[in-house]
Amino acid sequence: MRDVSIIGVGMIPFGRRDEDSLLDLLAYSSIKALDDAGLGDQGVDAVYVANMGAGILQHQTSVASALVDRLSLLPAAADAIENGPASGASAIKNGLLAIASGYYDLVLVAGGEKMREVVGWKATDFVATMTHPQVEYPYGITLPGMAGMFTRLYMEKYGLTREQLIAVALKNQQMGALNPYAHVEMVITKEGIYDHPDAVVNNPVAADPLHLYDMCPVSDGSAAVVLCPLEKAKMIGPKVPVVIAGFGQATDTHTLQERDDPTDLKAVSLASQQAFERAQLKPSDVDVAELHDAFTILEIAESEHVGFFKKGEGGKAAEKGETSLGSRIPINMSGGLKARGHPVGATGVAQVVDIVFQLRHELPKERQVKNARIGFTLNFGGFGNNIVSFVLRRAE
Amino acid sequence: MRDVSIIGVGMIPFGRRDEDSLLDLLAYSSIKALDDAGLGDQGVDAVYVANMGAGILQHQTSVASALVDRLSLLPAAADAIENGPASGASAIKNGLLAIASGYYDLVLVAGGEKMREVVGWKATDFVATMTHPQVEYPYGITLPGMAGMFTRLYMEKYGLTREQLIAVALKNQQMGALNPYAHVEMVITKEGIYDHPDAVVNNPVAADPLHLYDMCPVSDGSAAVVLCPLEKAKMIGPKVPVVIAGFGQATDTHTLQERDDPTDLKAVSLASQQAFERAQLKPSDVDVAELHDAFTILEIAESEHVGFFKKGEGGKAAEKGETSLGSRIPINMSGGLKARGHPVGATGVAQVVDIVFQLRHELPKERQVKNARIGFTLNFGGFGNNIVSFVLRRAE
Repeated sequence: MRDVSIIGVGMIPFGRRDEDSLLDLLAYSSIKALDDAGLGDQGVDAVYVANMGAGILQHQTSVASALVDRLSLLPAAADAIENGPASGASAIKNGLLAIASGYYDLVLVAGGEKMREVVGWKATDFVATMTHPQVEYPYGITLPGMAGMFTRLYMEKYGLTREQLIAVALKNQQMGALNPYAHVEMVITKEGIYDHPDAVVNNPVAADPLHLYDMCPVSDGSAAVVLCPLEKAKMIGPKVPVVIAGFGQATDTHTLQERDDPTDLKAVSLASQQAFERAQLKPSDVDVAELHDAFTILEIAESEHVGFFKKGEGGKAAEKGETSLGSRIPINMSGGLKARGHPVGATGVAQVVDIVFQLRHELPKERQVKNARIGFTLNFGGFGNNIVSFVLRRAE
Repeated sequence: MRDVSIIGVGMIPFGRRDEDSLLDLLAYSSIKALDDAGLGDQGVDAVYVANMGAGILQHQTSVASALVDRLSLLPAAADAIENGPASGASAIKNGLLAIASGYYDLVLVAGGEKMREVVGWKATDFVATMTHPQVEYPYGITLPGMAGMFTRLYMEKYGLTREQLIAVALKNQQMGALNPYAHVEMVITKEGIYDHPDAVVNNPVAADPLHLYDMCPVSDGSAAVVLCPLEKAKMIGPKVPVVIAGFGQATDTHTLQERDDPTDLKAVSLASQQAFERAQLKPSDVDVAELHDAFTILEIAESEHVGFFKKGEGGKAAEKGETSLGSRIPINMSGGLKARGHPVGATGVAQVVDIVFQLRHELPKERQVKNARIGFTLNFGGFGNNIVSFVLRRAE
């Protein structure tokens, strides 16, 4: 199997993009990635589109074929990949396998979602289409509801506190405010949350014990990467290639209730172990990580299951600043889903794009992890049902 | 790259299956395929689900994760693949790449669709979600409409006749009546179509010049295959392995109007060429083929573009019986989409399953091509926008 590298990345500002179609969003980031890879008029062999909701939200199918034509990349092969909010990383994984197989040399992976256009749907109901259609959703359980119950269990079992959750929100909104691609640009302060006379209004309970600031926004957006065999990367692209040193993917039960210990995110542990094993690296080798903080609790729980901290220690570490820039393991220097936003099909690709920016040392010093060489991403599907992880390495 | 083989197949009777959920349908054919492969309690490394419309029709996403849990295949990797009506073949292609890469050894691919459950949708409008959302569908163009216009051009350019189209319908419904998995079991006769006093009622114009009997039905159904490296096939499965000797995939313009010659199905030619080149075989080597006859015209046009007949000769060949059992190149001995049915996400997988039945010599003599060793499938996405082909070979 050949080593696969990323030679081009592209992203557009996430947020509300009423004026653009889903295809527009996908095309914009794709063009940036193709340009970043220095491909010029050269085509690609295959295109993967990551998307969760085009059928439901835009009443559109066959989006991958449409994108290939829109980008004048005919007759490239084209498929769309759906794996809920982990669609982005799944699409990159399939692009990686396509190149590793030896059948394809140049692959574009574009992830996108236009979620604010939820005609006849509430965003929460749209996202709940990934829950169990008989035993979860009909009883009113949604993703925020699951996250709330999960947080309560974590508090009871590990002594997690509201202050630890807030520490994640503060960090990620602070970083997001520095990220030109982020949806949420507002800096929040501890005082603003606790002492503000309007705190109850500013930061109301959303799914007890989670409040509004514990949740990611509903965003439109897209991100794209260009992949090629590492051995060809230096002949093609003008930028330092980033190697996908390892990937992992694992599934867990469809419903939370079937798990022996619902606070044990088995698929997160397993997908991460696979990625580290394939990369022949370990969690302590990672210089910078992007985790899937759709809810603040997830960043904390994932930071433990990935192996950055011991079980039950992630909240304390976040509160002590150990996940901030310049500290032990900087997490979500992009602002994460919490601030960059979470257009579901785009997220897994955006995480990889942000790590590529870090490993190419292209970010302003307020967000750049100095001399970052090893990066990690974790994209979370369902409520931990389907996890995809990558270990990324600067290729020199 | 490793050779990839099919060691297990499964299919359920297509038709109207109100009592089963989409997940039920996918699970039934998957269990048959896993059993056929002789896996027993052994798990698989990865699962691909081919589906076009779960989001629209069932308001369900993350179906691949749900299937893995349903089948007790945790923690296998799982992704859903969408490529319109060619989703099935796209999913098999991605399963093939996953194994060829060396990362996975045992892969289940299940394609399914529950199309008769079109709550708030007409089936034709659902299928039209693959057309161009600005310049096609809003003007009333649907897939049957495109097929009608395409047929008219073919008649004008190549002298195609109604009798040639009818010859395809007669053959495929005759074969479908012999196939226990087929949706349409009714045998039609030339007399019944032309001379019957109720012919206008029996076989009304649907999209001039195409009539009802030129069209496939709207079906529920599923089909599944188990893939593994050829070198391991004989150690695992009890059946003769079938090698995926070559695959091809190519895209064409999103809209028909942009094609220089709309009767030239460039992606069909290109995907087929790729498949034959990779297999180091040629069209005349093929013993039996499954083509994508969503409309009778497509079987004829594809039989030419694949290379079985010269351009403009496919209709005459069909009328002369050259695509029937025991003749030059038997096409759609399953009854094709026309009679087996067309649950869109299942179709590309079902085509491969039917060719595996042929290459394993498992069919009754009324449908079995004697000593068949080389098979071919063509799965047609959009209106020729995205084509996936396979050349299959009996492994001994």
